Amino acid sequence: MPYFDAASGAPLHPVARQALLASLDEGWADPARLYREGRRARMLLDASREAAAEAVGCRPDEMVFTSSGTRAAHSGISGALAGRRRVGRHLIVSAVEHSSVLHAADAHEADGGTVTRLGVGRTGAVDAQVYAAGLRPDTALACLQSANHEVGTVQPVAEVAEACRAAGVPLLVDAAQSLGWGPVEGAWSLLTASARKWGGPPGVGLLVVRKGVRFSVRGPVDERESGRAAGFENIPAIVAAVASLRAVRAEAAQEAVRLRELTERIRARVPRLVPDVEVVGDPERRLPGIVTFSCLYVDGEALLHELDRGGFSVSSGSSCTSSTLTPSHVLKAMGVLSEGNVRVSLPVGTAEEDVERFLGVLPGVVAGVREKLGIREEPGAPAPQTVAGAGAAELVVDSLGKRCPIPVIELAKVIGEVPVGGTVRVLSDDEAARLDIPAWCEMRGQEYAGEEPAERGTAYLVRRLA
Amino acid sequence: MPYFDAASGAPLHPVARQALLASLDEGWADPARLYREGRRARMLLDASREAAAEAVGCRPDEMVFTSSGTRAAHSGISGALAGRRRVGRHLIVSAVEHSSVLHAADAHEADGGTVTRLGVGRTGAVDAQVYAAGLRPDTALACLQSANHEVGTVQPVAEVAEACRAAGVPLLVDAAQSLGWGPVEGAWSLLTASARKWGGPPGVGLLVVRKGVRFSVRGPVDERESGRAAGFENIPAIVAAVASLRAVRAEAAQEAVRLRELTERIRARVPRLVPDVEVVGDPERRLPGIVTFSCLYVDGEALLHELDRGGFSVSSGSSCTSSTLTPSHVLKAMGVLSEGNVRVSLPVGTAEEDVERFLGVLPGVVAGVREKLGIREEPGAPAPQTVAGAGAAELVVDSLGKRCPIPVIELAKVIGEVPVGGTVRVLSDDEAARLDIPAWCEMRGQEYAGEEPAERGTAYLVRRLA
Repeated sequence: MPYFDAASGAPLHPVARQALLASLDEGWADPARLYREGRRARMLLDASREAAAEAVGCRPDEMVFTSSGTRAAHSGISGALAGRRRVGRHLIVSAVEHSSVLHAADAHEADGGTVTRLGVGRTGAVDAQVYAAGLRPDTALACLQSANHEVGTVQPVAEVAEACRAAGVPLLVDAAQSLGWGPVEGAWSLLTASARKWGGPPGVGLLVVRKGVRFSVRGPVDERESGRAAGFENIPAIVAAVASLRAVRAEAAQEAVRLRELTERIRARVPRLVPDVEVVGDPERRLPGIVTFSCLYVDGEALLHELDRGGFSVSSGSSCTSSTLTPSHVLKAMGVLSEGNVRVSLPVGTAEEDVERFLGVLPGVVAGVREKLGIREEPGAPAPQTVAGAGAAELVVDSLGKRCPIPVIELAKVIGEVPVGGTVRVLSDDEAARLDIPAWCEMRGQEYAGEEPAERGTAYLVRRLA
Repeated sequence: MPYFDAASGAPLHPVARQALLASLDEGWADPARLYREGRRARMLLDASREAAAEAVGCRPDEMVFTSSGTRAAHSGISGALAGRRRVGRHLIVSAVEHSSVLHAADAHEADGGTVTRLGVGRTGAVDAQVYAAGLRPDTALACLQSANHEVGTVQPVAEVAEACRAAGVPLLVDAAQSLGWGPVEGAWSLLTASARKWGGPPGVGLLVVRKGVRFSVRGPVDERESGRAAGFENIPAIVAAVASLRAVRAEAAQEAVRLRELTERIRARVPRLVPDVEVVGDPERRLPGIVTFSCLYVDGEALLHELDRGGFSVSSGSSCTSSTLTPSHVLKAMGVLSEGNVRVSLPVGTAEEDVERFLGVLPGVVAGVREKLGIREEPGAPAPQTVAGAGAAELVVDSLGKRCPIPVIELAKVIGEVPVGGTVRVLSDDEAARLDIPAWCEMRGQEYAGEEPAERGTAYLVRRLA
């Protein structure tokens, strides 16, 4: 059963499993102890730190192991901010960072700091020059992911790092998605990562703080991990995580070519196989294994459910699959369609035939979900049929209380009822509509004429052009 | 090779190992995901939470899994303090808590809060009435361990919990050392624990917050673990931790009797086998597996090294085994001898013959270490031989720059050179001397006459009585 959600977490790498088993026997004791079991644990920990540092391209004493990638991000950001508190309390992040970074930014703001959340283009990348212009004299820290976890777009880290260096601002790079593929280039100051992304076990994050970077740990500390990650080191998991990193790195160059070809197939063929699809993310500057697309008129949860029944495990940034009712902040920042969103992220070793089978199954699954919502697929996305007797210059669609993708479906159903030049006013209180109605207009060649506050929810105005 | 440091961390229980292996295959995926791997992970997580809650005696929705016992303590204390900030910022802890609790208290103080560190008696127990009297109208939180990790003394948690309940103050119990033996009785409000202490893998702590207890998480949060423990849940380790807890609980009653008898042998026989030894901790109200003693005129590091060579892994609270040069805060708070300190903590399943072998090896090891320091053992600890020509009413011993156990050894060597009624003034800048010189006086029937600041270090005054 193909698992296509590696960006969320990869299954344990066989090498990691082997290393974990061996170090459960050899590395369970406290490395701070003087007896043989403690000394053995210390040796394993030291060797792992050296190997991890080599893979990252840093000194062993710059690297600490944390209990997760999330913890690495939280500690790295709060420590760097506290270390430069006298410079100022301004933090820059991109709007498409992982939630752990954005949550740390929220906490900083709640604590009285200021945060700039820099926008991205439609491919999901920040503009390095815009980023550089966002640096201020009171900027304590800048954060930028090496590559995006939802759409795979690679960020211009080296350029941004250079701008930060010139401005004397440390740059923290969240390398979670890319570290398995190679080290992060450029003059970054801090780096975080999560072992789950490269086939390591849960429970291991990396936090690298370059020598010379001011860093002051917040909250209680102890003598573990240079005082930067309190609590007993999880040595068996650390050993396994580092073994896995070395194993995936050894095959990274070859595997990157292979997975890139497989995701390119999906990028190219999904729009031909499925009507009304938008493939998102940068077509060139992207990670090898991630491809993301959104399908109009589709309920994301139903789509995931049907793909799961068909044997494929994928994830979605649609609001209709999450309990928060907010579409993915990444898709939102990119300004692209969120409904019926599917992220395919291929684990290392994914078989070609599984991808082919996915491409075989997908069109029927999407058509089936659409059919249940009363949508018949029309290949080639023709202009709306003008309905006999259409004439009212403005039509109001009341979608209040209805969730994605219903507002867009109702809009599509009535657009033919107004004359060319007429408008449809969609009333909706679903947060996804703000994203999906403009995206629908762009895909369908209609004009999005803006939004207005309504008595309840928001009114979205669409002018019929064709 | 017997490992006698279970209080620091037990080797992985066979049941835990089995559960870990199974759940590495079944529980590696993100439990927040909708696909089959995610649903399986969710089921394992939910089942583990229910089983852990049953073992603790709480509701499943009161329990969250953290990345370590240390993290549970840090988060529990900061969350409870923040939740009651409007009541006040006073925190009570006992002076013998685990360092994770004391570090959290230090951080609270650094953040402007106030902390009472309640003293303990010579057995290491707090007095419940003294504890109750320490509660103030502005007390936000009280903390008390269920049992001490260095000397095994059981604390009067139920009485203190009752006093806290009456005062409307939540009590947080660090149950790390006792949870494998049974649930914590009494009306506690929060509870923390660490799976490593009962044979679970590293990377799992428990944090229980009773319904109705005000709790406000500090720092960045996410949707994991009711918003109380950010980052992806380490499900394989959680499953293993809970399986191990159930396994040790199933044999706890029987094993407690067996280990108590083994530690009782050590308590009773070590003072007969080794001259100048003080067994510390409560002889009755104590954990089954822990026994701690200190040996006069012994360098703790040398002792641990020789015991390790003899095949025994134990730990020590002596300053001469740690990089901090401060003796164990527990021994310090108890006012007992710290030099030559040995903690024996037997893992579940310890064989009787290993304990007998330890008792066989120990006397020779201590004698050997003492011999290297120029001490010949004198069984029965006779009164000092008055040296011919002794007469000076006061003698000064300059031990500046010398580390434990040298100051005490030099004191013992010269006490015979002053007449009965005369004094020896020991100059020392070793923090351990403050603890060990009074302890020596008590053991040897001499009078400790107090300390005075000296030009360098401190002068400790000892009056010869015999």
